[in-house]
Amino acid sequence: MHRSRLVGFIIDCQGQSLQGAAQFWGDALGMGVKALPGDEGSAYMELVGPAGGLHVEVQTVTHPSRVHLDIESDDIDAEVERLEKLGATRVAQVKSWWVMEAPTGHRFCVVHSSSAGFHQHAREWL
Amino acid sequence: MHRSRLVGFIIDCQGQSLQGAAQFWGDALGMGVKALPGDEGSAYMELVGPAGGLHVEVQTVTHPSRVHLDIESDDIDAEVERLEKLGATRVAQVKSWWVMEAPTGHRFCVVHSSSAGFHQHAREWL
Repeated sequence: MHRSRLVGFIIDCQGQSLQGAAQFWGDALGMGVKALPGDEGSAYMELVGPAGGLHVEVQTVTHPSRVHLDIESDDIDAEVERLEKLGATRVAQVKSWWVMEAPTGHRFCVVHSSSAGFHQHAREWL
Repeated sequence: MHRSRLVGFIIDCQGQSLQGAAQFWGDALGMGVKALPGDEGSAYMELVGPAGGLHVEVQTVTHPSRVHLDIESDDIDAEVERLEKLGATRVAQVKSWWVMEAPTGHRFCVVHSSSAGFHQHAREWL
Protein backbone atom coordinates (compact mmCIF):
# COMPACT_ATOMS: atom_id res chain seq x y z
CA MET A 1 0.00 0.00 0.00
CA HIS A 2 1.26 3.48 -0.81
CA ARG A 3 -0.23 6.94 -1.00
CA SER A 4 -0.08 9.90 -3.39
CA ARG A 5 -1.75 13.21 -4.17
CA LEU A 6 -1.54 16.25 -6.44
CA VAL A 7 0.77 18.55 -4.51
CA GLY A 8 0.93 21.57 -6.80
CA PHE A 9 2.29 22.96 -10.02
CA ILE A 10 5.40 24.57 -11.33
CA ILE A 11 5.51 27.47 -13.80
CA ASP A 12 8.55 26.62 -15.96
CA CYS A 13 10.05 29.75 -17.56
CA GLN A 14 12.54 29.45 -20.42
CA GLY A 15 15.46 31.85 -20.56
CA GLN A 16 14.16 34.23 -17.93
CA SER A 17 15.64 35.84 -14.84
CA LEU A 18 14.19 33.73 -12.01
CA GLN A 19 13.51 36.85 -9.94
CA GLY A 20 11.81 38.65 -12.83
CA ALA A 21 9.69 35.66 -13.82
CA ALA A 22 8.64 34.99 -10.22
CA GLN A 23 7.85 38.67 -9.67
CA PHE A 24 5.58 38.77 -12.73
CA TRP A 25 3.66 35.67 -11.61
CA GLY A 26 3.47 36.80 -7.98
CA ASP A 27 2.07 40.18 -9.04
CA ALA A 28 -0.27 38.64 -11.63
CA LEU A 29 -1.72 36.12 -9.17
CA GLY A 30 -1.68 38.43 -6.14
CA MET A 31 0.75 36.14 -4.30
CA GLY A 32 3.98 36.76 -2.43
CA VAL A 33 7.38 35.69 -3.78
CA LYS A 34 9.63 33.67 -1.47
CA ALA A 35 13.26 32.65 -2.05
CA LEU A 36 14.13 29.02 -1.33
CA PRO A 37 17.25 27.95 0.56
CA GLY A 38 20.30 26.11 -0.77
CA ASP A 39 20.81 24.84 -4.31
CA GLU A 40 17.07 24.84 -4.91
CA GLY A 41 17.06 28.60 -4.58
CA SER A 42 19.02 29.12 -7.79
CA ALA A 43 16.33 27.49 -9.95
CA TYR A 44 13.05 27.87 -8.01
CA MET A 45 11.08 30.55 -6.18
CA GLU A 46 7.88 29.81 -4.28
CA LEU A 47 4.67 31.78 -4.65
CA VAL A 48 2.93 32.19 -1.31
CA GLY A 49 -0.75 32.89 -0.76
CA PRO A 50 -4.23 31.47 -0.95
CA ALA A 51 -3.73 28.53 -3.33
CA GLY A 52 -5.52 26.11 -1.06
CA GLY A 53 -2.48 24.28 0.22
CA LEU A 54 -1.15 23.49 -3.24
CA HIS A 55 2.45 24.45 -3.95
CA VAL A 56 2.99 26.98 -6.72
CA GLU A 57 6.59 27.52 -7.79
CA VAL A 58 8.34 29.35 -10.61
CA GLN A 59 11.36 27.59 -12.16
CA THR A 60 13.88 28.70 -14.77
CA VAL A 61 14.38 26.06 -17.47
CA THR A 62 16.17 25.64 -20.80
CA HIS A 63 13.24 23.94 -22.58
CA PRO A 64 10.21 25.92 -23.83
CA SER A 65 8.08 27.51 -21.11
CA ARG A 66 5.23 25.39 -19.79
CA VAL A 67 3.35 24.52 -16.60
CA HIS A 68 3.80 21.08 -15.07
CA LEU A 69 2.06 19.22 -12.26
CA ASP A 70 3.77 17.49 -9.34
CA ILE A 71 2.41 14.34 -7.69
CA GLU A 72 3.86 13.56 -4.25
CA SER A 73 4.04 10.03 -2.87
CA ASP A 74 5.45 8.15 0.10
CA ASP A 75 6.69 5.43 -2.32
CA ILE A 76 7.98 6.84 -5.61
CA ASP A 77 8.70 3.46 -7.22
CA ALA A 78 5.22 2.13 -6.47
CA GLU A 79 3.60 5.36 -7.67
CA VAL A 80 5.59 5.36 -10.93
CA GLU A 81 4.52 1.75 -11.55
CA ARG A 82 0.88 2.65 -10.82
CA LEU A 83 1.06 5.54 -13.29
CA GLU A 84 2.69 3.34 -15.94
CA LYS A 85 -0.32 1.02 -15.73
CA LEU A 86 -2.51 4.06 -16.47
CA GLY A 87 -0.50 4.75 -19.64
CA ALA A 88 2.20 7.19 -18.49
CA THR A 89 5.85 6.59 -19.42
CA ARG A 90 9.13 7.27 -17.63
CA VAL A 91 11.19 10.11 -19.13
CA ALA A 92 14.09 10.57 -16.71
CA GLN A 93 15.08 10.22 -13.09
CA VAL A 94 16.32 13.56 -11.72
CA LYS A 95 17.82 13.53 -8.24
CA SER A 96 15.15 11.83 -6.11
CA TRP A 97 12.18 12.32 -8.44
CA TRP A 98 10.88 10.87 -11.71
CA VAL A 99 9.85 12.91 -14.73
CA MET A 100 7.01 11.13 -16.55
CA GLU A 101 4.95 11.78 -19.68
CA ALA A 102 1.16 11.37 -19.64
CA PRO A 103 -0.72 9.77 -22.54
CA THR A 104 -2.05 13.29 -23.14
CA GLY A 105 1.50 14.49 -23.85
CA HIS A 106 2.07 16.43 -20.63
CA ARG A 107 5.25 16.06 -18.62
CA PHE A 108 4.80 15.77 -14.85
CA CYS A 109 6.94 14.80 -11.84
CA VAL A 110 6.57 12.23 -9.08
CA VAL A 111 8.30 13.55 -5.95
CA HIS A 112 8.78 12.45 -2.35
CA SER A 113 5.88 13.46 -0.12
CA SER A 114 6.82 16.41 2.07
CA SER A 115 3.79 18.71 2.18
CA ALA A 116 1.87 19.55 5.34
CA GLY A 117 -1.36 18.32 3.74
CA PHE A 118 -0.09 14.95 2.54
CA HIS A 119 -1.32 12.77 5.40
CA GLN A 120 -4.73 14.43 5.39
CA HIS A 121 -5.37 14.47 1.65
CA ALA A 122 -3.40 11.67 -0.03
CA ARG A 123 -5.22 8.72 -1.61
CA GLU A 124 -4.29 5.18 -0.65
CA TRP A 125 -3.44 2.73 -3.45
CA LEU A 126 -3.35 -1.02 -2.82
CA MET B 1 -11.19 49.08 -7.19
CA HIS B 2 -11.51 45.50 -8.45
CA ARG B 3 -10.49 42.09 -7.19
CA SER B 4 -8.87 38.97 -8.65
CA ARG B 5 -7.29 35.67 -7.67
CA LEU B 6 -5.79 32.50 -9.08
CA VAL B 7 -8.85 30.24 -9.44
CA GLY B 8 -7.29 27.07 -10.82
CA PHE B 9 -5.76 25.43 -13.85
CA ILE B 10 -6.84 23.64 -16.97
CA ILE B 11 -5.11 20.58 -18.43
CA ASP B 12 -5.41 21.18 -22.21
CA CYS B 13 -5.26 17.90 -24.16
CA GLN B 14 -4.68 17.91 -27.92
CA GLY B 15 -6.55 15.42 -30.09
CA GLN B 16 -7.80 13.27 -27.23
CA SER B 17 -11.15 11.83 -26.24
CA LEU B 18 -12.31 14.18 -23.47
CA GLN B 19 -13.54 11.24 -21.40
CA GLY B 20 -10.29 9.30 -21.84
CA ALA B 21 -8.08 12.27 -21.08
CA ALA B 22 -10.11 13.21 -18.00
CA GLN B 23 -10.14 9.61 -16.78
CA PHE B 24 -6.34 9.38 -17.02
CA TRP B 25 -5.85 12.59 -15.05
CA GLY B 26 -8.53 11.71 -12.49
CA ASP B 27 -6.91 8.32 -11.89
CA ALA B 28 -3.38 9.76 -11.88
CA LEU B 29 -4.24 12.49 -9.36
CA GLY B 30 -6.63 10.38 -7.28
CA MET B 31 -9.55 12.72 -8.09
CA GLY B 32 -13.08 12.13 -9.30
CA VAL B 33 -14.20 13.01 -12.83
CA LYS B 34 -17.35 15.11 -13.20
CA ALA B 35 -19.24 15.96 -16.42
CA LEU B 36 -20.23 19.61 -16.85
CA PRO B 37 -23.65 20.72 -18.09
CA GLY B 38 -24.57 22.36 -21.39
CA ASP B 39 -22.16 23.38 -24.15
CA GLU B 40 -19.29 23.45 -21.68
CA GLY B 41 -19.65 19.70 -21.20
CA SER B 42 -18.48 18.92 -24.73
CA ALA B 43 -15.05 20.47 -24.19
CA TYR B 44 -14.41 20.34 -20.42
CA MET B 45 -14.62 17.86 -17.55
CA GLU B 46 -13.98 18.82 -13.94
CA LEU B 47 -11.67 16.94 -11.60
CA VAL B 48 -13.11 16.80 -8.09
CA GLY B 49 -11.17 16.25 -4.88
CA PRO B 50 -8.71 17.76 -2.48
CA ALA B 51 -7.14 20.51 -4.59
CA GLY B 52 -7.60 23.13 -1.91
CA GLY B 53 -10.49 24.95 -3.52
CA LEU B 54 -8.70 25.46 -6.82
CA HIS B 55 -10.55 24.35 -9.95
CA VAL B 56 -8.86 21.62 -11.98
CA GLU B 57 -10.40 20.90 -15.38
CA VAL B 58 -9.44 18.83 -18.40
CA GLN B 59 -10.13 20.39 -21.82
CA THR B 60 -9.83 19.00 -25.35
CA VAL B 61 -8.02 21.44 -27.65
CA THR B 62 -6.64 21.58 -31.18
CA HIS B 63 -3.32 23.24 -30.22
CA PRO B 64 -0.47 21.28 -28.58
CA SER B 65 -1.21 19.95 -25.09
CA ARG B 66 -0.30 22.24 -22.23
CA VAL B 67 -1.50 23.39 -18.80
CA HIS B 68 -2.83 26.91 -18.37
CA LEU B 69 -3.79 29.01 -15.36
CA ASP B 70 -7.07 30.87 -14.90
CA ILE B 71 -7.35 34.16 -13.02
CA GLU B 72 -10.87 35.13 -11.94
CA SER B 73 -11.93 38.75 -11.45
CA ASP B 74 -15.05 40.78 -10.73
CA ASP B 75 -13.93 43.28 -13.42
CA ILE B 76 -12.30 41.61 -16.42
CA ASP B 77 -11.45 44.86 -18.24
CA ALA B 78 -9.71 46.34 -15.19
CA GLU B 79 -7.85 43.08 -14.53
CA VAL B 80 -6.66 42.81 -18.14
CA GLU B 81 -5.39 46.40 -17.96
CA ARG B 82 -3.61 45.66 -14.66
CA LEU B 83 -1.93 42.59 -16.20
CA GLU B 84 -0.90 44.58 -19.30
CA LYS B 85 0.94 47.01 -17.04
CA LEU B 86 2.84 43.99 -15.63
CA GLY B 87 3.93 43.02 -19.17
CA ALA B 88 1.24 40.57 -20.31
CA THR B 89 -0.40 41.01 -23.73
CA ARG B 90 -3.92 40.33 -25.03
CA VAL B 91 -4.19 37.34 -27.37
CA ALA B 92 -7.93 36.95 -28.00
CA GLN B 93 -11.32 37.52 -26.43
CA VAL B 94 -13.27 34.24 -26.25
CA LYS B 95 -16.90 34.47 -25.15
CA SER B 96 -16.72 36.38 -21.86
CA TRP B 97 -13.04 35.84 -21.08
CA TRP B 98 -9.67 37.10 -22.29
CA VAL B 99 -6.77 34.89 -23.32
CA MET B 100 -3.48 36.63 -22.45
CA GLU B 101 0.22 35.84 -22.85
CA ALA B 102 2.65 36.36 -19.97
CA PRO B 103 6.13 37.83 -20.54
CA THR B 104 7.35 34.31 -19.65
CA GLY B 105 5.54 32.97 -22.75
CA HIS B 106 2.66 31.24 -20.97
CA ARG B 107 -0.92 31.63 -22.11
CA PHE B 108 -3.49 32.19 -19.36
CA CYS B 109 -7.13 33.28 -19.11
CA VAL B 110 -8.92 36.05 -17.22
CA VAL B 111 -12.45 34.88 -16.43
CA HIS B 112 -15.47 36.22 -14.55
CA SER B 113 -15.33 35.46 -10.83
CA SER B 114 -17.70 32.64 -9.94
CA SER B 115 -15.88 30.44 -7.40
CA ALA B 116 -17.07 29.89 -3.86
CA GLY B 117 -13.71 31.11 -2.51
CA PHE B 118 -13.54 34.35 -4.47
CA HIS B 119 -14.84 36.74 -1.83
CA GLN B 120 -12.67 35.19 0.86
CA HIS B 121 -9.40 34.92 -1.08
CA ALA B 122 -9.33 37.54 -3.84
CA ARG B 123 -6.86 40.43 -3.68
CA GLU B 124 -8.08 44.01 -4.01
CA TRP B 125 -6.42 46.23 -6.62
CA LEU B 126 -6.85 50.02 -6.53
